[in-house]
Amino acid sequence: MIEQTIANWHDHLRGKFEGGLDALLHDDCVFYSPVVFTPQRGKEITKMYLNAAGATLGGDEPRPGAQAGSGDEKKGFRYTKEVLAGNQAILEFETEMGGKYINGVDIITCDDDGKIVEFKVMVRPLQAINLLHQQMARMLEKMKG
Amino acid sequence: MIEQTIANWHDHLRGKFEGGLDALLHDDCVFYSPVVFTPQRGKEITKMYLNAAGATLGGDEPRPGAQAGSGDEKKGFRYTKEVLAGNQAILEFETEMGGKYINGVDIITCDDDGKIVEFKVMVRPLQAINLLHQQMARMLEKMKG
Repeated sequence: MIEQTIANWHDHLRGKFEGGLDALLHDDCVFYSPVVFTPQRGKEITKMYLNAAGATLGGDEPRPGAQAGSGDEKKGFRYTKEVLAGNQAILEFETEMGGKYINGVDIITCDDDGKIVEFKVMVRPLQAINLLHQQMARMLEKMKG
Repeated sequence: MIEQTIANWHDHLRGKFEGGLDALLHDDCVFYSPVVFTPQRGKEITKMYLNAAGATLGGDEPRPGAQAGSGDEKKGFRYTKEVLAGNQAILEFETEMGGKYINGVDIITCDDDGKIVEFKVMVRPLQAINLLHQQMARMLEKMKG
């Protein structure tokens, strides 16, 4: 059931899904960060986090918000594994940031209309989380400011 | 295809799977820690890490190695989500350690005989990884010593 949602998500990452995150996310979508315990509730804040993650982790298949031509530091974002069942999808990814390897998962839940109601991210190893923590904080400040 | 392997894994966690990890894991199984980049190769080292994780994270459904009666610090290990497809399984869990919330995933791959060939763990939030890092290091030292 979630297959179409994930196809749309991939199209979105290529900038080819009309309506973008506004069309993909449920109004009450909840985002769970790899760094912070507190759930981030609502479409607007989820969009902000996903755009910041895109700008931070993006690469070969840039997430929206990634700056074109930003060079080596953002190369290589790719999904390496997808497990879909019912209204659940788990997508494993790998990327590099400043030469450091980052391995993570997007854990996505959709409702019966295919809207994303929950988006959770985890990353490993520890060094990657610490780096992501710094970069995301910087990116969120920039987006807010 | 991985369904039987995961059923066996759950039985193992309840101490009810004859043969235990020796029967579940492929000889060339690789373990990927949430903390460390370097893959841990082979059945013996994978067993050591899984037993240490069990002793560290165990609770209501104790992983093997968890000490009975160790009290509050190890309560509440439970799987909250399972997504299985082909030879891939991703199991999300929650637990507490010293009152701190830990949320994680076991990413399990089996071969065509149902043997586990890859076991990867990621956890969130950052506080949980730092805590797990300390506890796992202590537990591994104890098991080696």
